[in-house]
Parts: sequence; structure tokens; C-alpha cells
Amino acid sequence: MATLVVLGAGIMATALATPFTDNGGEVRLVGTHLDRAVIDSIRDTGVHPNLQLAVPDGVTAYQLEDAAAAFDGADLVMSGVNSFGVDWAGGQLAGLLRPGMHVIALAKGMQADADGNLTTLPRALMAHLPDALRAQVSISAVAGPSIAGEVAVRRHTSVVFTGTDPDVLAMWRGLFETDFYHVWTSTDLVGVEVCAATKNCYALGAGFMHGQLQALGESDPRYVNFNYGAALFGQASVEMTEFVELLGGRPATVLGLPGIGDCFVTSMGGRNVKVGTLVGAGMTFSEARSRMPGVTLEGAAAIQVIGDAVRRLTERGVLPPERFPLLRHLHQVVAEDAAVDVPWKTFFGRDGSGQLSP
Amino acid sequence: MATLVVLGAGIMATALATPFTDNGGEVRLVGTHLDRAVIDSIRDTGVHPNLQLAVPDGVTAYQLEDAAAAFDGADLVMSGVNSFGVDWAGGQLAGLLRPGMHVIALAKGMQADADGNLTTLPRALMAHLPDALRAQVSISAVAGPSIAGEVAVRRHTSVVFTGTDPDVLAMWRGLFETDFYHVWTSTDLVGVEVCAATKNCYALGAGFMHGQLQALGESDPRYVNFNYGAALFGQASVEMTEFVELLGGRPATVLGLPGIGDCFVTSMGGRNVKVGTLVGAGMTFSEARSRMPGVTLEGAAAIQVIGDAVRRLTERGVLPPERFPLLRHLHQVVAEDAAVDVPWKTFFGRDGSGQLSP
Repeated sequence: MATLVVLGAGIMATALATPFTDNGGEVRLVGTHLDRAVIDSIRDTGVHPNLQLAVPDGVTAYQLEDAAAAFDGADLVMSGVNSFGVDWAGGQLAGLLRPGMHVIALAKGMQADADGNLTTLPRALMAHLPDALRAQVSISAVAGPSIAGEVAVRRHTSVVFTGTDPDVLAMWRGLFETDFYHVWTSTDLVGVEVCAATKNCYALGAGFMHGQLQALGESDPRYVNFNYGAALFGQASVEMTEFVELLGGRPATVLGLPGIGDCFVTSMGGRNVKVGTLVGAGMTFSEARSRMPGVTLEGAAAIQVIGDAVRRLTERGVLPPERFPLLRHLHQVVAEDAAVDVPWKTFFGRDGSGQLSP
Repeated sequence: MATLVVLGAGIMATALATPFTDNGGEVRLVGTHLDRAVIDSIRDTGVHPNLQLAVPDGVTAYQLEDAAAAFDGADLVMSGVNSFGVDWAGGQLAGLLRPGMHVIALAKGMQADADGNLTTLPRALMAHLPDALRAQVSISAVAGPSIAGEVAVRRHTSVVFTGTDPDVLAMWRGLFETDFYHVWTSTDLVGVEVCAATKNCYALGAGFMHGQLQALGESDPRYVNFNYGAALFGQASVEMTEFVELLGGRPATVLGLPGIGDCFVTSMGGRNVKVGTLVGAGMTFSEARSRMPGVTLEGAAAIQVIGDAVRRLTERGVLPPERFPLLRHLHQVVAEDAAVDVPWKTFFGRDGSGQLSP
């Protein structure tokens, strides 16, 4: 029987126990220091309090101090923390992993150095391991459109597992694939992870469509603001492709699940869209942020990181200033409390002629 | 002052009078034989009854029998009919156009011959002209995400004008571009038109997401069916790209406005999504169709035409049977009243390995 140790008891990490245990596997869910109440709840009631669902049979919950026991005898590990916890998780895994283990990670985002060089989170996670250990474990990641609650109740969900070793990916796929959880694999780790990070940025912008309509005081259902949102979504697809190219991924990865599909589901709702709606309606980002205390906003964080990096890369002459106009505007909104004022005329072309790039 | 004659008084054709007259142009709106009441209403009240808005100053409405008078002294022509009216409009234009005129067309769809060879609608329209005349007029088309009512009330809208002559496209762009109506141009007429036609097919499928959720009797807002819709949307982006390649357009055209952007806005609602929702909830297409009498369903029509062509091209050995699995399933649903049963495992790859195509 396959045994998966999950570090971090967030809703997505927990939801993925459904397909894994459906396939007969055992899950050991280890909470972080922030998950104490979640683990207590699962132990006491069987219910994940944020997911508001019973966890499957086959899941055992551990507090962090029992992590070593949870890791004992397992060789499959999921890093279930979000982008804010990656460095912490890397530090933990440095002490818990053993040679031969396989790691799969969920966090979506990017990190950047002072020169604006961007790094994917699986790589950032592994950077915490001693070199010798890092060479003896594999790292893969889950991406693609999935809302956790839907996975947990077995809605059809199509995702991508990405990594550099096709055999490892095939192994992970075999462990998770069910009749509702459909898994594809891609060896374009960079492209998939860049899509996963940047789609969170653009999803925040999708909220502008709703917010700007509210600001107009319009309620006529015939004059919704979908043309506005469609142009943002289209520009997002262009910029995602350019980011993948910039970082050495495969542009074709943007099509299908990792880019377009995931950007679609993320733009349909959630916390990033909500804060984008508030900003679109006229609040500064700081005001909107303060209305959502305690809520993690991975999209806003990614805008900050990637926007800072784009600015730095432009200063260094690596990027021309007319590239990524939507991401730059999102960065102004999030980092500088600028009002939403979408630079439409700068979209879809790089020479100002109005001609689409061929 | 620029004078535009519009043949067909549908809502999109009429809505486009807003940016054109904002720029100081004059519009002569000529109704088809189906538009008699629309033209009467505009003449009597100034209001387009389907758009439920006053038409701009600068618009004059003509019944079809006065078409020759409307065309007198104008050299800009819009074919405003939908895909069902293209051949009729071509016949009319054969008698109304004169050398040197410029035509821009709105209809979205494709036509196919008995061998499954697909043709864009601008080409189908022009096929009705005598050869000598056809060589002396230009044909362009409007595409990209735009809901007519939003254009009419000046919501930000970003579109593509496509044709083969960059100078003609620049002229059209200059006539329509405003501070809310943003126009890009593309000389990839085939790619843009293929996107415009196929996005209507896939938008019908977007309704399945809602309908299947209804069929489950689920109303918990945490377990919406967006993962389902995102995978369909992702597969749509892959198949749109493959259709563009098949017909000789530029794959990059799918990114941005013509493909992804337009598919997004069309998937957000409208008649095709509505019939897709009914079918997703368990009705046959024939039953759903009969619940919507008198409603034109361009997406369903495009599925029929393109699906028939795909089948014929497969019989002829031009296409392998594993290509376009989503379009083929949509065709089964629409042409054969098949139940919705999305072939998830056939998506995103062509070799059944689960590996994404690089």
C-alpha cells in the first residue's frame, strides 16, 4: 500500500487525499505550526474545518512534533504548504527527507533575487536541502485548474504533474489518477510553474471587471463588463506566454491546462478576484487588503515579487519597458496603491502600430 | 465625413454605429427582409427593439427596398448579417457593390464542401460576387470579444480587424478606434476567422459545466463545477490552435483577443451556453433546441458544419481519429442527440500516454 506523508494540512493538500485514498493509498497528514486547530479537529471529529468536509478513511492526522513518526516508513512526500511557507517547508524537509524519497509540491508562486532573476518554488524548496540529499530525492509539482473543494467531493478535475523525470511523473500519476481526477504529465517544469504563478497575478486583475462595473453603478444585466474582462484575459494569455519564453519554458505549455485552463478557473472567483473587485470599484489596494484580515492573497504576493523582478530586469536592460504592460499595471496597483486605469492601447503588440504580433 | 452602409440591422451591426458615429461618421442602416420591424422601430422611436437602446444620432434606417439609395455615394460597407445570412448577403452585395468599395463583415462561422474542406465566411460572402467585381473590392472582418450591448453603451472593448491588406485594415481601424473601442489589426484572416467560428462551438460546451452541476442537484457554492469548465476551456484552447494550423492560419493568433479572449467572453453566457446548460443537465439537444424557438444558435450550427467536416476529413484520411476529441463529442451531442459524457482521458495529448504534447 502506498503511503504519502503530507506536510501542511491546507485545503488543497487535504483534498488530494481523496483521489489518493480512493486508489487504496494511506495518507499521513502533518500539520504545520499554523495547522494545530485543523489537526485537532480532524482527530476529534474527522472533519477538516476549512474544507468543511470529513477527511477520507485512510487519512491519519499528525501534529508537527510527530512529523518524524509520520515520515517513518514512507517514501512519498507532498509539500502541501502555500507560497508563503515554502522556505519553512524546505527547512523542515532538510531534516525529514532521506535518500530515495520522492517529493511533490503544491505551492504556486515565484521567488526572485536582487537582480530580478526569478526562481520556481519547487527549486526554492529544494534549495534548502544539503547538496548530497538533494541529488538523491526527486521533486515534482501539481499544477492546473483545481478548486480544492471540488476535488474533495470528486468533481471532474484535470491537472498536470510536472517535473524533470518522466518515470517519476508516471509513478505519481498512477498513484492519483482516478475516474474523476485526470492527470497529465509534463516535463516542462519551468513552463508549468511560471504559468501557475503568473495566472494568480492575472486572476486578481479579473476582479477589475466586476469592480469597475460596480463603480459605474450599472446593474443592467445586458451591459455586464465581459468585454473588459475578455481583453484582460486575452492579454494575460499573451503575457503568460512571454513569461514562459523569458524563463526558458515551452510556450505551448500555456495552452491547455497549465496556463489558459488554470487562469480561467482562478479568474472565476476566490480571494484574489475579490480583492481585485474591491480595487476595481475604487479602493486602494491597501484599503482593500485591510478589509480582508488574515486572508492569504497569493496573487497579490506574486504580483509584488514578479512585478519587482520585471522592474529590476527592465532597469538592467534585460526587458524592454513596453513588455508586460498588464503585469506592470497590476504591480502599480498592488505595490503603489495606484488607481485601476488599464493601459488598453499598450496591449497585444509591441510596436504601437495596432498590428497584432504575427 | 465617412459614410458607412450597413446591410443587416442586428444588434452587433447596430452597436458598432456607436464608435463609428462617435468619430463623426454617418451610418446608413439597411434592414434585411427579416428586419422590417426593427427598421420601423428605429424610424418611429429611434430605438432598436432588440438592443433596447436609442441608436446614435448619425444613423439613418432604411428598409431593404431602399438599399440602392443607401449605397449611393458611400464606399464603406458593413455586412452585418449573421452566419445564416451570409449567402443571402453575398447575393445582395453582388448587385450593390461597385469597384473601389471596402467591405467589412461580422458573421462568425464556417462553410464546408462535400469533401469537408472548410471555408471562412468572408470568403464565402465574396464568392457570390462576379470575378471582376471581387477583384476590385476589399474584404475585411471584425472579430474578438465583444458583446453588442456593451459596445453600444461604450464599455471598454478590444477587438481585431482582420483582412489581407494592412493599409485597408489601418483605414478601418482609424474609422472605429475610440477611447473605449480598442482595435488591433491582423493580416491572419484565416486564423482569426477560424478562432471566431470555433470559439462558438466550444462556448456551447461551456454550458455543460453548469448543466452537469444542476443534474447533480448540488447547490453548495464551494463545490461549483469550475474544474470541469476549466478543463473544457483548456482543451478548447488546444483544439482552436490545431484548427488554425489545419487551415493554414498562424497558431499565435489563438493567444490574445481572437481566440482565448473571445472564447472567454462567449463562454460567460448567451444563447449557446444556455442550450449547453440544458443539454448538460440531461436533455437531448433536440429537446433543448425546441425549448428555445426562434432563437438562432450559431454555435450549434458551427458544431454541425465543422463536426461534419471533421468526420469527412477523417474518412478521407486527412485527420487522424484521435484529433479534436472535444469538437467530436460536441458534434455527437448536437447532431446525434448523444448524452453529455466528456471524454476527459482523450484530451491534451495525442498518444494516450498522459504526457502533454511538448
